[in-house]
Amino acid sequence: MGSLMLGCVTNFFTYETTKSVVVKSWSVGIINRLVQLLIIIYFVGWVFIHEKAYQVTDTGIESSVMTKVKGFGYHNDRVMDVADYVFPQQGADIFCIMTKLIVTENQFQGKCEEFGEKFSCTTDKDCHKHFGNILANGVITGVCIQPSNNTKNGQCEIEGWCPAENDDQAKIRPMIDVNNFTIFIKNSIRFPLFNVTRGNFPTTMTATEIRSCTYHPETHPFCPIFRVGDVLNYTGQNVDALASQGGEIGINIEWKCNLDLDIDYCVPKYSFTRLDAPFAKNAISKGYNFRFAKYFKTENGTDFRTLHKAFAIRFDVMVTGNGTVLCDIILLNFLKGAEQYKAKKFEEVSEAQIEASLAQSPGSQLSLKPCIKSSYDSGAISLATSY
Amino acid sequence: MGSLMLGCVTNFFTYETTKSVVVKSWSVGIINRLVQLLIIIYFVGWVFIHEKAYQVTDTGIESSVMTKVKGFGYHNDRVMDVADYVFPQQGADIFCIMTKLIVTENQFQGKCEEFGEKFSCTTDKDCHKHFGNILANGVITGVCIQPSNNTKNGQCEIEGWCPAENDDQAKIRPMIDVNNFTIFIKNSIRFPLFNVTRGNFPTTMTATEIRSCTYHPETHPFCPIFRVGDVLNYTGQNVDALASQGGEIGINIEWKCNLDLDIDYCVPKYSFTRLDAPFAKNAISKGYNFRFAKYFKTENGTDFRTLHKAFAIRFDVMVTGNGTVLCDIILLNFLKGAEQYKAKKFEEVSEAQIEASLAQSPGSQLSLKPCIKSSYDSGAISLATSY
Amino acid sequence: MGSLMLGCVTNFFTYETTKSVVVKSWSVGIINRLVQLLIIIYFVGWVFIHEKAYQVTDTGIESSVMTKVKGFGYHNDRVMDVADYVFPQQGADIFCIMTKLIVTENQFQGKCEEFGEKFSCTTDKDCHKHFGNILANGVITGVCIQPSNNTKNGQCEIEGWCPAENDDQAKIRPMIDVNNFTIFIKNSIRFPLFNVTRGNFPTTMTATEIRSCTYHPETHPFCPIFRVGDVLNYTGQNVDALASQGGEIGINIEWKCNLDLDIDYCVPKYSFTRLDAPFAKNAISKGYNFRFAKYFKTENGTDFRTLHKAFAIRFDVMVTGNGTVLCDIILLNFLKGAEQYKAKKFEEVSEAQIEASLAQSPGSQLSLKPCIKSSYDSGAISLATSY
Repeated sequence: MGSLMLGCVTNFFTYETTKSVVVKSWSVGIINRLVQLLIIIYFVGWVFIHEKAYQVTDTGIESSVMTKVKGFGYHNDRVMDVADYVFPQQGADIFCIMTKLIVTENQFQGKCEEFGEKFSCTTDKDCHKHFGNILANGVITGVCIQPSNNTKNGQCEIEGWCPAENDDQAKIRPMIDVNNFTIFIKNSIRFPLFNVTRGNFPTTMTATEIRSCTYHPETHPFCPIFRVGDVLNYTGQNVDALASQGGEIGINIEWKCNLDLDIDYCVPKYSFTRLDAPFAKNAISKGYNFRFAKYFKTENGTDFRTLHKAFAIRFDVMVTGNGTVLCDIILLNFLKGAEQYKAKKFEEVSEAQIEASLAQSPGSQLSLKPCIKSSYDSGAISLATSY
Repeated sequence: MGSLMLGCVTNFFTYETTKSVVVKSWSVGIINRLVQLLIIIYFVGWVFIHEKAYQVTDTGIESSVMTKVKGFGYHNDRVMDVADYVFPQQGADIFCIMTKLIVTENQFQGKCEEFGEKFSCTTDKDCHKHFGNILANGVITGVCIQPSNNTKNGQCEIEGWCPAENDDQAKIRPMIDVNNFTIFIKNSIRFPLFNVTRGNFPTTMTATEIRSCTYHPETHPFCPIFRVGDVLNYTGQNVDALASQGGEIGINIEWKCNLDLDIDYCVPKYSFTRLDAPFAKNAISKGYNFRFAKYFKTENGTDFRTLHKAFAIRFDVMVTGNGTVLCDIILLNFLKGAEQYKAKKFEEVSEAQIEASLAQSPGSQLSLKPCIKSSYDSGAISLATSY
Repeated sequence: MGSLMLGCVTNFFTYETTKSVVVKSWSVGIINRLVQLLIIIYFVGWVFIHEKAYQVTDTGIESSVMTKVKGFGYHNDRVMDVADYVFPQQGADIFCIMTKLIVTENQFQGKCEEFGEKFSCTTDKDCHKHFGNILANGVITGVCIQPSNNTKNGQCEIEGWCPAENDDQAKIRPMIDVNNFTIFIKNSIRFPLFNVTRGNFPTTMTATEIRSCTYHPETHPFCPIFRVGDVLNYTGQNVDALASQGGEIGINIEWKCNLDLDIDYCVPKYSFTRLDAPFAKNAISKGYNFRFAKYFKTENGTDFRTLHKAFAIRFDVMVTGNGTVLCDIILLNFLKGAEQYKAKKFEEVSEAQIEASLAQSPGSQLSLKPCIKSSYDSGAISLATSY
C-alpha cells in the first residue's frame, strides 16, 4: 500500500519532454532560421506594430460637445441673429441653422378652408375622402366651403389653427448669408479607462488666435472655428440647394490616441459628410424641415400663434475615437511568462540533464548526450536508468 | 578561437524537430482522423462561421436620426398639431408627444396662496415647517393666508408665479388621438472603419410607397413610418395609461451588417421597449412629465406666463449595430503563414532529408527513411552523420 | 493501381505522435510540476479571474436618461422656477440650469447704435473696418451715429434687433440658490446581447425614501436625487465662479455588470467631472453661455422680442458601461474540446498501444512499454511492426 502510494507520487513527480533531433546541415539550418526570422518579423511587424495587439483599447470615450454659432443673415427683409435662427439655442451637439422660413401669421383656433389644389371640392362629398388625412393642415370636417365668387372650385374645410399654412411659396429666398456664419466647437473627451482628458484645441492657443482663425484641414487643422460655407464645400454640397431645401451635415471628430506617446499627439481629426446622402436617390424627404410656433395672446386673452415652417441645415457633431495604451502588464506577464516557461523548460532540462547524466550511470543505450551538448535549444532526450 | 566561433555558428544554423512515431493501425488511424475532423469542423463551424472570428468588427458606428411626427389631436376642445404637441420641434432622436396638459393661465410674479391640502394652515407657524420646500409652487414665505370666509383652513403663502398651479386635475382627458399619429424616422449610419453608409429604407422606395406604408414587422419591415398605436402595442403598453401618465418608449434600430455580403442585406431591425420598465415597481416617478411656460407681455410691459405641466410619451430612437468584414489580410497572412510554416517545416525537412540522406552516408544507425517515405505528414527523424 | 490506392489509404489512416521521454528525477520532476502549477495559477488567476477572458462583453448598451430639476431661485428680484431656468424643459440627458441672465427688453427690428468702446467712432470711415464683423450685435451699416451732446464719441450703427445688447453688466448677481436645487436622474439601461434591463435605483425604494434622500457616495450611493451644490463640490468647483460664468459638469453613470452574479449586484456608480477642464488654461470660452429670445407682438402686430444672454451650468449625464457573462459555450466547448482532444490523444494511444502491443509481436527493437505503463501523461512511443 505504502509503496503503491510512493509509486504514484514518484510517477507524478517526473518530467516529460518530447524527443528532438538536430539536423546539422548548413542548408537546412539556414532555411530554418530564415523561416523563424520571417515569423518573428511577421509577428513583431504585423501583430504588434501594425495591428497594435497587446495594446489595451478604450472605445467607450466620454465626450461633451458645446457649439456656438455667430453671424447675421437677411431673411424677409429682417436681420436674423443667433437667437432667431439657431435651434435649439443652448449650443448642443446637434443644432439647426434655419435658412428659410415660411411664416403663417396670426393663426387662431377655428374653422377655415384648407390650402392647395389637392383639397379643392365642389360638394361636401369630395371632402369625405380626406377624412383622417394627416397631411392636411387640420382636421378635415367634411364640409366643402364654396368660394364667394363661383368662378372657381371650393376648398375643403379644416378645423384647427386658421388660416391654413400655404407652404407653396417658391418665391421666398433662402438666407444665403449662412455661408459666412461660423460655428465654434468645443469638444472635451475623456478616456475613462486611462483617465485622460483632452480638448479639441491646444491649451497654448490664445484668445486672439482662436477668435481670428478659421479651420482649414491643412493650414489650421486645430482651429475650432468652422465657416459654414467651408463645411458645406468639404461635403461637396451645393449651398443654394441646401439653404433652400435644408439638409443634414455631419461633423465628425475622430480621436485616435496612442497614449503611449506624448499626450500632445492626441489630437482631433475633423471630417465632414452629408448625412442624408443615403436618401439622395429617394424622391421623398429631400432636405430637412420642421415646424414650430410662437404663441401670443390678444388683449382679451385669446391665444394665437405664428406658425413657422423652417428649412434648416442641421449639423450633427459626432465624436468617435479610441485610446490605446501598450499594456505592460499583459506584455510583461503573458509573453514573458511564455518566454520564461519556454526558457525554463529547456534550461531546467539541460541542467538537470547534465546533472542527471553525470550523477547517473552513463550506460543508457539511448543516451544522446553529445547531441544535446551541441544543441542550444533542443528538447533533451534521456532516459533515467533507475526504473 | 576561430574554430569556437565557427562551432557556435555551426550550432546556430541547425534544424531541430521533434521525433515522431507513426502508428500503422487502422483502428487507431481512423479514430485519429475522426478526432482531427471533429476539431476542424468545430473550428470552421463554430469559431469561423458562428462566432465570426477573423472578421474585423466596427462597433463605433456614426448614426444620425431625424424624426417627423404627423397627426391631429383634440385636447381641451382645441385641435393640436405638430407645432403644439412635439417637443423639441426640430425632429431629434429623442422627442416627446404631449398627451395631456395641465394649463395654468395668466401667472404673474407676486405672492399668493399655495395649492393643496398639504399646505393648509391655521397660523403662520404651520407654514414655517415648509420653509425651503422645493415641492411647492414657489418660495414659502412663512405666512398663512386666512380665507375670506372662516369656514375652512387657510393656505400657506408662496412667492413666485401666481396663481399657483393646481395639478390635481383628474378630469382632464388625455389626447387619445395620439394612437393615430405617425412617426417618420430617417436614420443614416456610417461604419467609419469601412466607410460604408446606409439608410433605413431602400433607395428603391418611391415617395408614394413611403407616404402610404405603415411599418409592420412582417409585412412592411422596412417602412420608415410608424403608427404610435402600433408602437405602443409592440411594447405591450396600455395606451390610456400612457397617454394619461406619460411614459418612455424606446425604438431600437439594430444594424448587424456582414459587409462581406451584398450591401443590400445590410438592413435595420426595429424593436420596441418601454424604457421606464425597470421602475415599474417603484411607486414614484410613474410616467413622464415636465413643465414649460409660454411668456407674454401685457400692454404696459408686465411679463406674465402660461404654465404647462405636460404629460408626454417620450420616444428615444436608439441606434446600435456593428459591421463586420472578413479580414482577408489576417486570414491570408496569419493562417496561411501558420500553414505555410507548418507545411514548410515538414516539407523542408523531407526534401532536405532525402537530399541529405542521398548525399550523405546512409549508414546512420537511427535512419528511419522507410518510415518517412510512407508517412505523408510526419515530422522526419534523422541524424546527420557529420558530427 | 489498386494496391497503390490501398497504400495511400493505409498511409492516410495512421496515427502519428511525438516521441517523449520521461525523466524520473525527483528534483527535475518537482521543478516541472511547480512550473506547471505556476502557469495554471497564472492562467486561472490572471486571464480568467482578473482579465475576465472567456467572458462575453456587451459594450453597446442602450441607455435612456430622464432628468427633473426642482428648486426656486431669486434673480433680478424675481422668483424663478423650473419652467424659467431649465433648458431644454423636457428633461433630457443634457440640460442647462440658467444662473445669470442679461436681459435686453423690447428689441425691435431697425437701426441703432452698437454698444461698446470697440465700436466708438468719429466718422463713418471708422465704422467701415467693422463691416462683416460677426461679433457685433447686428449688421454694421458703416454709419457713425453722432451723440446728441458732442462731449463724447459717436457709435457705429447696426441694423438688426434694437437696442443692442449691453452684455457688460458685471453688477448682475448670479442665482446662487442653484446650490440647493436638486436633480432627479432616472436612468434605465439594457444590455441587448443579454436582454437584461436595469434601473439606477432599487425597485425596493419607496416613494418616500426617494423623495427624502440625497445622493452621497458613501451613505446614499443609490439615491437618484443629487443636490447641485454637492455635485459642484465633488468636481471641486467654485460655485460662485460657475454660477457667474457658467460651466459644464459631467455626471457619469458607470455600469460594470458581471451578469454571472446576482442581478442585484448590477448597480450604477456615479462620478462627477468638470467637462470644460481641458480648456481651463485657454483665455477664451471660459464658462458657458448662450442667447435666446422670447417673442411678443404689439397691439398693432409688430414683432418685438426680449433677448436673453443666459449663463448656465450645463449638466451632461453620460452613461457608460458593459455587461459580461461567462460564456459557457466557449468555455465548455473550446476548452473542453481542447482538453478532450488532449485527453483523447493520450488515451487513444495508450489503449491502442496496449492492445496493439498485446496483439502484435512484442519483439520490436524500440518497444518501450514498461516506460509507458509507468507514465500517466506521456505520449506513447511505439512502432508497429507490420511494415
